Amino acid sequence: MPQPVDLVIFASHVIPVVPTHAVLRDHAVVVHESRIVDVLPRAEVAAKYEPVQVKDLADHILIPGFVNGHSHAAMNLLRGLSDDKPLCDWLMEDVWPAEGKFVNPDFVRDGVTHAAAEMIRSGTTCCNDMYFFPEDAIHALEKIGLRGVIGQIVLQFPSAYGSGPEDYFAKARALLDKYKDHETIRLSVAPHAPYTVSEDNIVVADALAKEYGVPLHIHLHETLPECEDSLHQNKQSMNCHISAEKLRPVANFQRLGLLSERLVAAHMTQLTDEEIAMVAAAKSHVVHCPSSNLKLASGICPVTKLLANGVNVAIGTDSAASNNSLNMFNEMKLAAIVAKVDTMESTSVPAAVALQMATLNGARALGLEKEIGSLEVGKRADIVAIACDNIEMIPMYDAISHVVYVAGRENVSDVWINGKQVLSERKLTTVTESDIKSQVRQWFGQIRDFHDELQQKKQASS
Amino acid sequence: MPQPVDLVIFASHVIPVVPTHAVLRDHAVVVHESRIVDVLPRAEVAAKYEPVQVKDLADHILIPGFVNGHSHAAMNLLRGLSDDKPLCDWLMEDVWPAEGKFVNPDFVRDGVTHAAAEMIRSGTTCCNDMYFFPEDAIHALEKIGLRGVIGQIVLQFPSAYGSGPEDYFAKARALLDKYKDHETIRLSVAPHAPYTVSEDNIVVADALAKEYGVPLHIHLHETLPECEDSLHQNKQSMNCHISAEKLRPVANFQRLGLLSERLVAAHMTQLTDEEIAMVAAAKSHVVHCPSSNLKLASGICPVTKLLANGVNVAIGTDSAASNNSLNMFNEMKLAAIVAKVDTMESTSVPAAVALQMATLNGARALGLEKEIGSLEVGKRADIVAIACDNIEMIPMYDAISHVVYVAGRENVSDVWINGKQVLSERKLTTVTESDIKSQVRQWFGQIRDFHDELQQKKQASS
Repeated sequence: MPQPVDLVIFASHVIPVVPTHAVLRDHAVVVHESRIVDVLPRAEVAAKYEPVQVKDLADHILIPGFVNGHSHAAMNLLRGLSDDKPLCDWLMEDVWPAEGKFVNPDFVRDGVTHAAAEMIRSGTTCCNDMYFFPEDAIHALEKIGLRGVIGQIVLQFPSAYGSGPEDYFAKARALLDKYKDHETIRLSVAPHAPYTVSEDNIVVADALAKEYGVPLHIHLHETLPECEDSLHQNKQSMNCHISAEKLRPVANFQRLGLLSERLVAAHMTQLTDEEIAMVAAAKSHVVHCPSSNLKLASGICPVTKLLANGVNVAIGTDSAASNNSLNMFNEMKLAAIVAKVDTMESTSVPAAVALQMATLNGARALGLEKEIGSLEVGKRADIVAIACDNIEMIPMYDAISHVVYVAGRENVSDVWINGKQVLSERKLTTVTESDIKSQVRQWFGQIRDFHDELQQKKQASS
Repeated sequence: MPQPVDLVIFASHVIPVVPTHAVLRDHAVVVHESRIVDVLPRAEVAAKYEPVQVKDLADHILIPGFVNGHSHAAMNLLRGLSDDKPLCDWLMEDVWPAEGKFVNPDFVRDGVTHAAAEMIRSGTTCCNDMYFFPEDAIHALEKIGLRGVIGQIVLQFPSAYGSGPEDYFAKARALLDKYKDHETIRLSVAPHAPYTVSEDNIVVADALAKEYGVPLHIHLHETLPECEDSLHQNKQSMNCHISAEKLRPVANFQRLGLLSERLVAAHMTQLTDEEIAMVAAAKSHVVHCPSSNLKLASGICPVTKLLANGVNVAIGTDSAASNNSLNMFNEMKLAAIVAKVDTMESTSVPAAVALQMATLNGARALGLEKEIGSLEVGKRADIVAIACDNIEMIPMYDAISHVVYVAGRENVSDVWINGKQVLSERKLTTVTESDIKSQVRQWFGQIRDFHDELQQKKQASS
């Protein structure tokens, strides 16, 4: 007797990611009650399963959804507000004034909704986010159906969201309790960076992360000044860590016991061999954000060395304000090709490794490797279909190469998250695109006027 | 009395590229008999012009079409045949055997048609191509309507296309005569590289280019081994220049008088300050191919230094076999962000400069700067419309930033070349996409079978 199941997706190519190089031709992925219950040849399906729904994708590649390892989703409303400036000027002249004026729960809800729509449309099924008003971000993700790990922000200073470290921690604890059993939303504790949170408070944040068994998500070694100014205790610099130690932040983290399996360190463009060994020994995770790191001239994360030392390296987009898009296809290709020129070896980060970094390694970083990151029996059904029947995708000799080096966000046709279809033939199923657009346009008008006024004042005073 | 004209295109944003930072709001581009005859505010059009056709693009950016400065269009049929290998193995184990077996006039016609379709769909309106059977490439471009500069290949060795240098030169001369007055097709003389063409023959090629007033298109300083093996006269290496001089190729070109305004040097990842000064003094042109150079671990073209020294730097995709796509949006963004990390200055290659490199600088390299490369009165109407009304493109604070950092090939809605619409609402108007796809599929079947057999033989013998 065939077994009743919710959904069978047939596809010409299935890339399960585990094992690394596998491409299954003419297979089906069987989904029941949010999970993958089988992956089998097309011909064997009829005898085994009686699906409520069938999706037949004759010329498509199925992959596990991308895990965007580092995002600030709400900042989508600031996409392209300012570019081609030094990080410091970009933050102080453009981004922080706009955030100071506009960030509130509505901004976060609308920005996250917009970002989530963009992520789903480009094949991302889970993001690791860090921003203000995390519960508003959670509500937005729940509504659209994107899986997410939402960072409980900690800063040394007050913001629209909290009055200071104690307040951030109190809010974090409340949400950690509230959402501990949620199926698609997990939390992290997210002290912003060593130069915006004191070492004492990072230690407190880590203890909280440990208590709740969640990741500690932080910006780390993003730039050379962060490392140098911390090492030399250059206290005038906004990049110097809030610590009395003359150490680079990773070494200080080692001293403080902050390097652990919980640590998810975004950026890490500056790493000595000794620091790589520390990170590897601690089994900490690194999130490589190549577009952001190149565009802000931060540096290049030494991915090849990290991988060779056994470090788990995931991939992230950073925010649309610095990237300026949330397109994991771009990041994955960039991760693969930048590694090659960085090592001067065309064999570095081959396509299958880049795809694993963008999926399974992201899941591992978030402690979700038993739940997502590959198309394996027992995992949640976070599945992306990539259409292959278009001018740009043909001919196709190797499906994995094509996913990494050829496909773009526009080739994503269908997306399922937790077994639920959230994109169908490029249409979002849970939200109305025109509603999102009109919300974004309202914010745009206000932010543009504010920004223009600021520019005019600056010019008048100069 | 309003003047009768062929076409008026209204758009919310027009980026003429000249002047560099201009964004014209609610303007129109007026086209008559293949040329741009006016660029003016929307409100002034009705009183001045009576168009046969009107295209009203309410939420679009118009830009001059991209000039792809270095392509091997026919190699589209080998897209993704092999990846993540050293250049030498990639060529010798995979690309050259497939080319040896399959390259003929039909291969070139079908490959170029496919590539041209991909280029038009991604906003490219002119390519600078180099491959075998150039007249078949010309016929394909004429049919689809893509503007092109077609290289007359010269090699030291015989190929399916020619028996040796004399034959290549004879064929080149015949085509240079035949196509000297063509409106959308220009020719170049294209000796492949210093390591595949003797210095004597490159000198002959340059004399021919000079005689006909066309560019000399060559691969130059693509890799470090090319420079080192030439300098050290390492004759066993396939990368050593065919010359008795112990010189890096650019220095040898200087000695031979080959650095000139005609020279279009693709790649140039290896350049000393002295070599940059030579190239600048000669007013030679450089084509930066970032994806290919990163993916093949060739190196990074020092774009910022070249620009600072007044060198004209264009952008190219290289072939789909090494990139693996012909997407100038990717190359332009990559050129902008790689320059920033290469110089560790986020101000390097700002968006407007990247856009100029991808358009006007390409036109300059090809000696076509009076004809194409910007939206100016008197130039040919090579115009691309980018749709802005989608989730990924909003909000938009700065149209130039969005073209470079946000837009993708899928946002190209309409394309005109030489005044003729070749893409309309993402549909090619001059060819049938399904015909191209079935042609590509036929080649794919044969090439895949041949490649698989080759792999099996290799495994059996190892």
